[in-house]
Order: sequence, then C-alpha cells, then structure tokens
Amino acid sequence: MNLREDGRLALDWVASYLERVREFPVLAQVEPGEIRAALPASPPEGPEPFQAVLNDLDAVLLPGLTHSQSPRWFAYFAITGSEPGILAELLIAGLNQLGILWRSSPALQELEEVTLDWLAQLLGLPSGLHGHIEDTASTSTLVALAAARAANPGERVVVCSEHAHSSVDKAAKLLELELRKVPGDEAFRMRPDLLDLDGACAAVATIGTTSSTSVDPVPEIAERCAAAGVWLHVDAAYAGAAAVCPELREHFAGWEHADSVVVNPHKWLGVPLDCSTLWTRRPEVFRDAFSLVPEYLRVGEEVASLSEYTQVLGRRFRALKLWAVLRCYGRSGLQERIREHVRLAALFEQWVRADDGWEVVAPRPFSTVCFRLRGSDEGNERLLERVNESGEVFISHTRLDGRYVLRLAIGNFRTTEDDIRLAWEVLNREAARL
Amino acid sequence: MNLREDGRLALDWVASYLERVREFPVLAQVEPGEIRAALPASPPEGPEPFQAVLNDLDAVLLPGLTHSQSPRWFAYFAITGSEPGILAELLIAGLNQLGILWRSSPALQELEEVTLDWLAQLLGLPSGLHGHIEDTASTSTLVALAAARAANPGERVVVCSEHAHSSVDKAAKLLELELRKVPGDEAFRMRPDLLDLDGACAAVATIGTTSSTSVDPVPEIAERCAAAGVWLHVDAAYAGAAAVCPELREHFAGWEHADSVVVNPHKWLGVPLDCSTLWTRRPEVFRDAFSLVPEYLRVGEEVASLSEYTQVLGRRFRALKLWAVLRCYGRSGLQERIREHVRLAALFEQWVRADDGWEVVAPRPFSTVCFRLRGSDEGNERLLERVNESGEVFISHTRLDGRYVLRLAIGNFRTTEDDIRLAWEVLNREAARL
Repeated sequence: MNLREDGRLALDWVASYLERVREFPVLAQVEPGEIRAALPASPPEGPEPFQAVLNDLDAVLLPGLTHSQSPRWFAYFAITGSEPGILAELLIAGLNQLGILWRSSPALQELEEVTLDWLAQLLGLPSGLHGHIEDTASTSTLVALAAARAANPGERVVVCSEHAHSSVDKAAKLLELELRKVPGDEAFRMRPDLLDLDGACAAVATIGTTSSTSVDPVPEIAERCAAAGVWLHVDAAYAGAAAVCPELREHFAGWEHADSVVVNPHKWLGVPLDCSTLWTRRPEVFRDAFSLVPEYLRVGEEVASLSEYTQVLGRRFRALKLWAVLRCYGRSGLQERIREHVRLAALFEQWVRADDGWEVVAPRPFSTVCFRLRGSDEGNERLLERVNESGEVFISHTRLDGRYVLRLAIGNFRTTEDDIRLAWEVLNREAARL
Repeated sequence: MNLREDGRLALDWVASYLERVREFPVLAQVEPGEIRAALPASPPEGPEPFQAVLNDLDAVLLPGLTHSQSPRWFAYFAITGSEPGILAELLIAGLNQLGILWRSSPALQELEEVTLDWLAQLLGLPSGLHGHIEDTASTSTLVALAAARAANPGERVVVCSEHAHSSVDKAAKLLELELRKVPGDEAFRMRPDLLDLDGACAAVATIGTTSSTSVDPVPEIAERCAAAGVWLHVDAAYAGAAAVCPELREHFAGWEHADSVVVNPHKWLGVPLDCSTLWTRRPEVFRDAFSLVPEYLRVGEEVASLSEYTQVLGRRFRALKLWAVLRCYGRSGLQERIREHVRLAALFEQWVRADDGWEVVAPRPFSTVCFRLRGSDEGNERLLERVNESGEVFISHTRLDGRYVLRLAIGNFRTTEDDIRLAWEVLNREAARL
C-alpha cells in the first residue's frame, strides 16, 4: 500500500464522516451479534488493499457504531476527538515511540512532563506536582490507591461516597482493600459527619460524580485525612476540565491538598481516547510502590523513567495529542468551550424548570442536567428507550434516591444550542406519545 | 483549523518522516532535560495553528526521538507501526468510539471479538478461546494473574522462571502474591525438575523470554499445573507472532493447555502501540474477578461487555488497527515478514559464529541473536556505548550467566539485509577501535 495515497483516502473518510455525523442514528440500531455475523469468520489468506478496509468500515461496521463524535450524544459524559487530537494520533502512530525508559524516547517522557505541568497550570493545581498520563481513570485510580496502600501499610480500608465511580470498587477489589461507602446528603455529596477513617489507607473524594456531577466537600475531607494520615485521592475525571475557568474554580476548593488527583482530558478537553492525567505531590511513594529498581542502584541512572511511577512498562506518545490540543485551543479556546457547555446546560435546565411536566432532580454545578418526567420510573424508562431508538439523540440514565433519572451530559465540542433544542423537542415529543 | 488541509500536512509529515527515517541517529543524542528546556514552561493563552505544532515537532522534539520506526533499531524488541496500522489509528481517533458497554459501540466490541478469533486461528491457538485486547503485556499479565488468584483462593504464590519478564514481578507486587523464581538451564529455559507448585495459584511460562528469547518447556509445565490445579499463564508477548509460520510452531507446543496466553501484536505483527492480545479458556473466572454486575442481574442484559473481563472500564477502538493490519498483510504477508526476520537473524548468527573474535551465547529460536565480543564485560559495555553513540544502529544488552551480552533483535518490517550488514560492520569497526 501507499501511505500518501491511502492516507488521503483515510483522511477524506474521517473528514467526510465528521461532516455528516449528525445524519447517523446516534445510538447504534443493531442487535447483539449482528456485526459479528456480517464479518468473515476467518482472516484473509493474502493481502487486501486498504480501500477494502474502508469499504467494509462503511458497509459492515458503520451501522454498529454509536457516535460519540455526534454533537447529539448526551449520554454518560460527552467526549470529543477534536481535530488537533485526531491528527496528533496520526503523528503518534507514525512515530510509534516506545516509552519504556527515558532513553527509548526522551521526547516522549519530557513532553509528557511538560504538558502535565501546563495542564496543572491551566487547572490551577499547585505547582511542583509530579504528573503522568494513564489510559483511563480506572487505571489512574488503581495506581493511586496502590500508592496509598504502600504509604499506609496495614491499613486496608478505602473510604468513598456512595456516589463514587465503580472504578473505585474495581480498584479496591484488585488491591484486596475493603471499601467503606459514606452516605451522601440531599445534594448527593459525601456527608463528612459520617466519614469514618478508622483503618483507612485512602479516601476518595469526587468532584463531579458520575450520576449527578455532585461535588464532595473536599476541604473538610482533606482536613480529616491530613489529621488521620490518610491518603486523599481526588477523582475529577469529568469535571476537572472545568477548572480551566476561574469562575468555576469554587467547585475545586481543597483539591490542592490531595495526595493524588485524576482528570481525564479525553472527556471534556477534546483529546481523543485515551488520555487520563494523574498528578501527585508524593511521587516517591508511587516510585516505591511500582519501581523494581532498588534504591541503591538508582544513582547511576540517567533519569527516572515514567514507568517507575506506574504499573505498565510501556507507554505510547499520548503527550503529543495533549500538547497538540493545548496549543491549538490555548487557554482561551478551552475556556470558551467549557463556558458554552455550561451555558447550554443552564439553558436546558431552565426549560425543564419552566415546564410543569418535568422536574430537575439534582443541583447542576457543571454541564450535566439530571431531570425526569413527573410520574413513574417505568414511564421515564420507556421514554428514554423511545428517545434513543429515534436515533436523533442519545441520552442515558441513572438512579438517584431510588428514582429513575435522565441525564443530559453536554461536553462535545461540536454541540450547539440547536442540538440541545432538538434534545428537548425529542424528549417532549416522545413524552407526549407515551 | 481545517481537518482536510491540516490533515494533508500531518500526513505528508508522517510519510516524509518514514522516507527519511534512516537519516536520523537511531538513539536520541540528547542529555536529560534538554528537550524539556527547549519547550515553553507555560501553555499558550490563545490558539495556535496546527502548523506550529508540526514546526516544533521538527525543531524541538525530533532530536529527542529514539526511532523505533528505523529499520536499524535492534534494541529490546524491534517493533513496527505499519502503514495500515498508522492509518487505522487516524480512523480510530476520528471515530473516537467509547468502549464501555456493548451498546456504547457494538462494532468495537464485536470487531474485537472477531479479530481475536482471527488472530487465534493464524497462530494455531485452540478454537473457542475468549479474547480481548489490553494496552500492554504488563496489563495482560496482571489481569491474568488476578484471575488466577480468584480461581485459587488462599494460594498466594506465583511461580515463574528466573528469566521471566519484570511485568510478572510487578503484577505479583500489586496483587500481593509471593513470587517464586525457578532457575533456568544452560539454554535459559525453566528447569521443570526444580518447579515447586506448592501454594501456587499460578505459573507463568514464557515462550521467547526477553533476555535470550528462550522457550520454557511448556508441555511439562502444563502437565504439572493441570495435576496441581494451578493456573497456567503463557507469556508469548514477543514470540507469539512467530506461530503464524507452521515451521516455527514447534516452539509453541503446550500453549494450547494454557489458562491464559498473551501475545503483543504491537511487537512483531506491525500494529502500532498499543495492542496486547489476551486469550483465555476460562472467561467465567475473569468475569468473576472483574465484573461488578452480580450474577442475578445478568439475565436482562443485552450482552456481556468486554469491560467485565478486565480492570479498566473504557477501551478505545484498537480492534480496528488489528483488523486493518491482518487484512492488508493477510496470513501470507505476515508469514513472509516473520520468515525474513528469522532468515536475517540466522545470517547474522552465522557471521558471528564464523568470526573468532565473537561468540554466540544463547540458542536462537526466533529473530534475536545474543552474542558478545570475546573478552571482558567492560569491553562489551564500552563497545555498545560507542555503537549506539554512532547513531547508525541501536542495540541493547542483557546479562546471561552473569556475563554482559549484546542482543540484536530483528523485527521491524522495513529492515533489510543491508541494515543487518551495517550493524555487523559498525560492531566490527567499533570493536577494532577499542
């Protein structure tokens, strides 16, 4: 194959896909096994042209895609593979840098360190933190809790709110730590009066929980952790991006005291999957937990490798896409997008509040609105099914206080007011048909 | 920015980079901190054009790259970001599929299942295995050993050869399992007569160890594991690709009995980083170890999500690049490349054997030659430094039987006989200058 010629085809495919992304049903309208059945059961014996791959991407795979790039994806958390991020992935693959040791790619390691410093500055995190990139927040939280376990030998409890992400459950399970869940208050924030740190090696506080985007009272939790010598991990995987806006910084009070903080630039900062950023003020604990190089051998080394601070040995050149996105948007470009999403969420919230048939069921600190049709859970569940089956928008749900709740999560860089308006129209149309 | 126009620039950059990749010093010739110092300490306030990113890639980062795409990279294990793999990464980022549940991208999940079946067929693995993709073998081995721990509650020992990869050490540390290392024989293979499975939940057998690419006696180890009820994990991260050639299958005897097997298509199969494939014949154990969905709730689900079989919740659309590579090379194309690399390694080995100044220090089952200049360790160490400082080739070392040993690892798809010849010339030239 010819990289330049086939590359044009691939590039045109992506550009044309993004131009027509609003035309596809956002949620794939296929049955389980349908895509599998349309693919050959065995691999080809001889080489096929790259064009054949593109043809089957259209003919076979396209119906099985759920379009996170659609500006009408409002499910879970909206994400964006932005243009600079997409092209950076092309560069990353072309360079195929192997990040196992500093010397196997000095540029990879040092750009990762610099871009993590840049992002910490943009988010108003304290200076001097040690940062690195993981694939997802699942891994960031896992390695942070492994560090916490190493820092507090013998203490085998992790404390978090009942609204913390399931990755905390998974990490505790892998690390064989007991998980103690603290009830939330009426606004789904951890209740510090019920926080029991006895036997705890770590507490996880969340800024922007997955269900309702509630914000735990981090200053109080941090104070309690400091007094008890408990590691504080702050999960701001979704909401962390909002700290780029000074007017939203109030929600981040206290995170400067965290022992570790995770933010996912692949969620609300335009970086294509995967890119989860993890900072710590205690890098030496990470190194103790993960490095296999004994201390007495470290002197002769050129420099500590990033692999000494985490579980995996090899890393790809993810820093390049974070760098490209931070440069091509700049501080002001990122602020504009975050502000617009918060404005759109406030607008949608207003529409819901203004209509007696609907109710808002949680405070909205960021860009995600939790709401429901007044009436039964079953009604809301049927409504959501119909809305998603229409293919016009994709919305997901959660349970809050035992009730079935709809979530409209705004965060795609290409989403406009018209897209939000469409979501509201589709919801009302399908509600009327119930 | 304009995706089509800037995309042309990025594509041209990559194509031109690969055309001139032999011109760069393979090992970066920079000092620690040099790249960092050349980058601004703070992020830009406003947006910059994508061209500025490309300019700084040339001006600032390029000297800090160590070129794994160079056909003259013979260090660690050689890797290739092949053309179909590179373009597939562009498509992956453009589509930005979010693999958290089946419904969040049915095509992602089902293509991953199908390509893992395809690759299992190509490698002669048993049919019916459950496969999924992880980022690296560090993660594949970690989740396999976590499954082993879940399958054998109370047994807290992992057994492996002294030549097993450090990722086994790291996984055991995270899982708080004791690691018992079995001495190797004169050919660096695990000695089954010294294999003690008492208290073991898992044994790791390696086909193609990192130091010498030795092959553990898997049939005997498998038999012992089966008798003792111990989980057998086979690490074929590097060598697994060779199983695509029937004439090399003899090295893989016994791996069909493994409970889990890892192969890294991002090593010797042309897939850009990252892509590690993991198969198991006991998927229900993985699901028990990792799924948070209680069994009694599973009935109503559409289909089990791949995230139920591993630690991380979100996965990107890596299957697309594996699919593109398998299709654009086909079975015959992959066989050709593996065979050529084995031929080149045999040729180089012949040159070493024919010269009294040098010695071969390990059997060579695949494409990696372990050799040394006759004489002192210090001499070999100085030699390697000089060779790598020349920038003409990049070679790494190991220690075998306490001696400093050079390794020539062949595996880049663009490597030719001329590149191997150059390596031999540079080695001899620098040896003469010592």
